[in-house]
Amino acid sequence: MEKLGRASEGNNSLLCVGLDPDPRLMPIEDVLEFNRAIIDATRDLVCCYKPNLAFFEALGPPGLEALRRTVEHIGGEVPVIGDGKRGDIGNTARAYASALFDYYGFDAVTANPYMGGDTLAPFLDYAERGVFVVCRTSNPGSGDFQSLPVTRSDGERRPLYMEVAARCREWNGAGNVGLVVGATYAEELQKVRAECPDQPILIPGIGAQGGDLRGSVENGLDSRGGGILISASRQVLYASQGSDFADRARDAALDLRERINRCRLEENRMQG
Amino acid sequence: MEKLGRASEGNNSLLCVGLDPDPRLMPIEDVLEFNRAIIDATRDLVCCYKPNLAFFEALGPPGLEALRRTVEHIGGEVPVIGDGKRGDIGNTARAYASALFDYYGFDAVTANPYMGGDTLAPFLDYAERGVFVVCRTSNPGSGDFQSLPVTRSDGERRPLYMEVAARCREWNGAGNVGLVVGATYAEELQKVRAECPDQPILIPGIGAQGGDLRGSVENGLDSRGGGILISASRQVLYASQGSDFADRARDAALDLRERINRCRLEENRMQG
Repeated sequence: MEKLGRASEGNNSLLCVGLDPDPRLMPIEDVLEFNRAIIDATRDLVCCYKPNLAFFEALGPPGLEALRRTVEHIGGEVPVIGDGKRGDIGNTARAYASALFDYYGFDAVTANPYMGGDTLAPFLDYAERGVFVVCRTSNPGSGDFQSLPVTRSDGERRPLYMEVAARCREWNGAGNVGLVVGATYAEELQKVRAECPDQPILIPGIGAQGGDLRGSVENGLDSRGGGILISASRQVLYASQGSDFADRARDAALDLRERINRCRLEENRMQG
Repeated sequence: MEKLGRASEGNNSLLCVGLDPDPRLMPIEDVLEFNRAIIDATRDLVCCYKPNLAFFEALGPPGLEALRRTVEHIGGEVPVIGDGKRGDIGNTARAYASALFDYYGFDAVTANPYMGGDTLAPFLDYAERGVFVVCRTSNPGSGDFQSLPVTRSDGERRPLYMEVAARCREWNGAGNVGLVVGATYAEELQKVRAECPDQPILIPGIGAQGGDLRGSVENGLDSRGGGILISASRQVLYASQGSDFADRARDAALDLRERINRCRLEENRMQG
């Protein structure tokens, strides 16, 4: 979290660039070369990078080797979130944590809460690494379970995602638990922020998924005017399909960083 | 599901051997060699194999190459379930589905329902492949969310895992949706079976996790006396730490198959 704070402050940025290398959209063939070009073009504009494991896995072992070298290329200054949304029991979770933290060296990961707190513990035990727990997602079907009202043993009733948020606050003993809340539900983001005032929130979905940037900033900022990571992937990575893709990615990242910072300034001004 | 039925009938088995190659427990160093020995020793005793992706991922890209060759070694007769419990939105889920079905060639996968039905659709779209949706797991923290009572829009209240089971039944249009229910909750298995009378249920947790074999068979069998896959990993793989590990794995698998079949016979007799 300290590393994230330093990168965010140093680059004056709440922008997280998601690395989703999709062969059907990439202007060049080599994944590692593509990622390196994107990273070199945006390194001073982001608070973190978020490689999406699925796109590397789809390429088989060579894709995973490209992932390892991508993380290596980012280096030690800007934190890297391994977005794999893993979740499994005891020794399996330990194997996932070892893969993500020990082998690839991610600073943080995303994880799925459905199987319960003990399945997240092996990740949380890495006290120097972060865990962003999937809370409320931005897809159309996210309401199938996440927004169903659940009744707790004390009789209180609230949506499942708010129960997840409450547990994330409890699990935050080592100060290394964040949440994932999609940008398409600005009101719900506000409720999660109220439940978890001091925890970082990773917010995907402002680009291709049509989420609301202003609403996300307004409702997501913590009391110090930070604490959110606004994630964009396709609109940065594939801003151009031509040989100028890295320059256009930089333009898109610059534009996003500025738009986020403008919303942030206005919000901070309104908060006095 | 047809392939599963053929293997189950041909080998007279409801036993699924989980492939969790753990370097700290393996009697030999090479993962692929270990898996091949286990597979060759048990091939005629199982209804399927279930490689656990975490253990391969923890070894980096070479581990994933061993996974690919493990699936290849199993060949076309016995189905292979890729146990990764993935769950993510649209194009990410498509990338995971492509990795698991196209690249590795799994016959089925496990998936996490928390993010909703549209996140499972890219897997379900492979109508010739199976998807086992995590419903009720066998770990201590599974009650954190899975057993909380949820209230549906029609006012009905039931535990979250039963809502997941109900949706699994709806999603089963192509007949390719199964469920994962841990062996430690035999009563709940009975409720899930009642909700989903015709869908296969993958049941982990009878070994190291202390689940109840008899209860799992009694409560899990479908009306045709089948429809369950009882999964065991460590008690088969690590039956011996010596050079006789493959023979001892065969003994353990033989014993489990027989114990399962005995419970099955008694249950079928009682059902008349």
